[in-house]
Amino acid sequence: MTQEHQARAIGGAVSPTSNTTMRKSNLSLVLRQLRDHASRSRADIADSTGLHRATVSNLVAELLDRRLAREVGIEHVGAVGRPRRAVALHGAHVGALGLEINVGHISVYGCDLSGRAVVERSIGFDAVGSGPERSLRRLGIVAGEAIKAMRQAGAVPAGIGVAVPALVDVARGVVALAPNLEWYDLPLADQLTEALGPLSLPVTVDNDANLAALAEYTSGVAAGTPHMVYLTGEVGVGGGIIIDGRLLRGADGFSGEVGHLPVDPAGERCGCGRRGCWETKVGLEALTRAALPEGSGPHVLDPEERAAQIAAGLAAGDPRTHDAAAQVGRWLGLGGSIVANLFNPRVIVVGGYFATLAEWLLPHAQAELERLVVARQAGPCWFAASDLGFGAASRGAASMVISRLIDDPSMIMTPLPRPAAP
Amino acid sequence: MTQEHQARAIGGAVSPTSNTTMRKSNLSLVLRQLRDHASRSRADIADSTGLHRATVSNLVAELLDRRLAREVGIEHVGAVGRPRRAVALHGAHVGALGLEINVGHISVYGCDLSGRAVVERSIGFDAVGSGPERSLRRLGIVAGEAIKAMRQAGAVPAGIGVAVPALVDVARGVVALAPNLEWYDLPLADQLTEALGPLSLPVTVDNDANLAALAEYTSGVAAGTPHMVYLTGEVGVGGGIIIDGRLLRGADGFSGEVGHLPVDPAGERCGCGRRGCWETKVGLEALTRAALPEGSGPHVLDPEERAAQIAAGLAAGDPRTHDAAAQVGRWLGLGGSIVANLFNPRVIVVGGYFATLAEWLLPHAQAELERLVVARQAGPCWFAASDLGFGAASRGAASMVISRLIDDPSMIMTPLPRPAAP
Repeated sequence: MTQEHQARAIGGAVSPTSNTTMRKSNLSLVLRQLRDHASRSRADIADSTGLHRATVSNLVAELLDRRLAREVGIEHVGAVGRPRRAVALHGAHVGALGLEINVGHISVYGCDLSGRAVVERSIGFDAVGSGPERSLRRLGIVAGEAIKAMRQAGAVPAGIGVAVPALVDVARGVVALAPNLEWYDLPLADQLTEALGPLSLPVTVDNDANLAALAEYTSGVAAGTPHMVYLTGEVGVGGGIIIDGRLLRGADGFSGEVGHLPVDPAGERCGCGRRGCWETKVGLEALTRAALPEGSGPHVLDPEERAAQIAAGLAAGDPRTHDAAAQVGRWLGLGGSIVANLFNPRVIVVGGYFATLAEWLLPHAQAELERLVVARQAGPCWFAASDLGFGAASRGAASMVISRLIDDPSMIMTPLPRPAAP
Repeated sequence: MTQEHQARAIGGAVSPTSNTTMRKSNLSLVLRQLRDHASRSRADIADSTGLHRATVSNLVAELLDRRLAREVGIEHVGAVGRPRRAVALHGAHVGALGLEINVGHISVYGCDLSGRAVVERSIGFDAVGSGPERSLRRLGIVAGEAIKAMRQAGAVPAGIGVAVPALVDVARGVVALAPNLEWYDLPLADQLTEALGPLSLPVTVDNDANLAALAEYTSGVAAGTPHMVYLTGEVGVGGGIIIDGRLLRGADGFSGEVGHLPVDPAGERCGCGRRGCWETKVGLEALTRAALPEGSGPHVLDPEERAAQIAAGLAAGDPRTHDAAAQVGRWLGLGGSIVANLFNPRVIVVGGYFATLAEWLLPHAQAELERLVVARQAGPCWFAASDLGFGAASRGAASMVISRLIDDPSMIMTPLPRPAAP
């Protein structure tokens, strides 16, 4: 109720500016109703927003005109009472583009306003070897191709979200520190905008684990669980923390940095220069080294392919690979216990290669978690494998863009360009 | 604005029940205004609550009648305009009693509704050796004495809060698991109520670190810092986490369990049965063992006295004690880096013995934190020593009771018993 009454309160003011503000805010309210429900009658919307029915009809008419909503037939409520025409979110002509650039791959997820996937792909790519400049040029090319494909499909993107395994200054769109990419103070938003030239759109940058956590909370295996942690499983390992249904950001947006937790003072040297970081125990490199003898098989860069290669070894019953998985599983459980002791989440969703190898890793991880967590009986916490695949972060990046569009419909209220001819 | 409009919305209903509810809710709104400001005119209250001025005058009159508010003179606003009479929170006749029971001591903090201390004491007590039954009997005696003292001082307590170094089932008032006290599934609220007999009052139980964190956020060295972590420094070490100005509780209320974080796989066995828990590195026992040769000096139970004993050694320049403090300081920094990497707080406030020995521990801790935290330049995080002393948790327990009274003024709106004769 809160938000709606606030909107009505704003309505009490009389200047034209605040009337415009109020109308945008009310359009956003109605759009959110449509996003959060499969379909909604005008009466439902009026009831849950506290807006007058006439106002709702008027706002819905505008959304229908602009093809952001569509009529979806008649709802009969109870035996008596008038049948009510319901509307649903449409926006098939408005798109959001999500990108992820990580150590070994670029992922792309383009969808329309209702979340329907339009473009989805993953490309093996050596971001470290390429350096920041060439990497951003490549990201620009991939993004440009996706924008064109989305336009051809009729879902013209209105914004781009980029996921990076990094500490990100979200307000400025700057990658402050990406140890595994070896990027420091990189103005990613500005440089991608430049690389895209005339195809350019508003760019938002955020941490990969944060965005994947949002995707999991919205549409993953534990969707809607108010206290949830997401762990990426790539060459690096990051964490995204959901508390009371909201992403934890901390004082500077740098929360959830699980990769370099010091878990073993006698452990080996990490790429970051410190000793015994958790990543040296559970990162994909650690598993690869333990599972595959040096020089075995072709050098595979894409983590998805490498995970598949290790899965094949496990399925074939290779004892060295099984030992390696058990060891990594136990360290995964130890890190999970740190997260569980501090945040008390109900579920820890694991993505990336952790999810690919879940059947071999998670039994060991769960046993170790239960051995180490203080509140093991009283406050159960379960590992769960993500089913969003390696694309979780790019999907989260796209859904972040959609949230922004819905919060500020003026971004999609201006006349939209017609889809380009193929 | 939000809450106030909600209160007005409730006012739209017409049944007598909801009118009573609305009046209570509006009284609570006005009380919160008085709690959060030194003084407030009726016009100020009307402006910030969105309530009508006549309603505010009426509510303030009721609070004045019940001696929960008092007139504090005339406020002149600007050169023109009528002078306005301001009111402030009074409630000197309403009290809240906070207690803490820990491994080596019981702390008591009794205050009136405006937070003014009425009773404050700490007693050395062997809660482990005494067992739960005798401990609760002792707690009952101490609480009974405090209640009588508060009544004599004219601040009749309306509720009791108890802080315990434990996983607490807050809703049921049950200590689920207190490893350092060796208490399990102890119905503390019920047993304290029974022990108090006719002196009994509503009892709320909560984790000591959570309550101390609330006290720090309200009135400590880093008061008002929205992202803050508090670490207790006792025989055990607990954490209370403030995120966006609110206490993190997690799915079951068991967040902030820092004491048994696994930080050294090759470390020594902890009292909990696991190996290398953080508490084995930074708990008061660890420092005592490292600093004092076996059998040196008298056996001192109260942690405050033991910390003072070690401080004396440090002040005297004893090299063994200095080495011990440096080592514990570094481990404190390592644990701080885990907390900083995961929560990205601006400040880590340390209490208990950490605060007593701050000048010797914190330089080592800060250096190690900065070496280990990933976002060290971009997101600074500082250790700070609490100045609330060993009584922080009991003070937080009392302020939790006050918050409950202010949220539900009906608890103090019934006719109050007269103070008993001395």
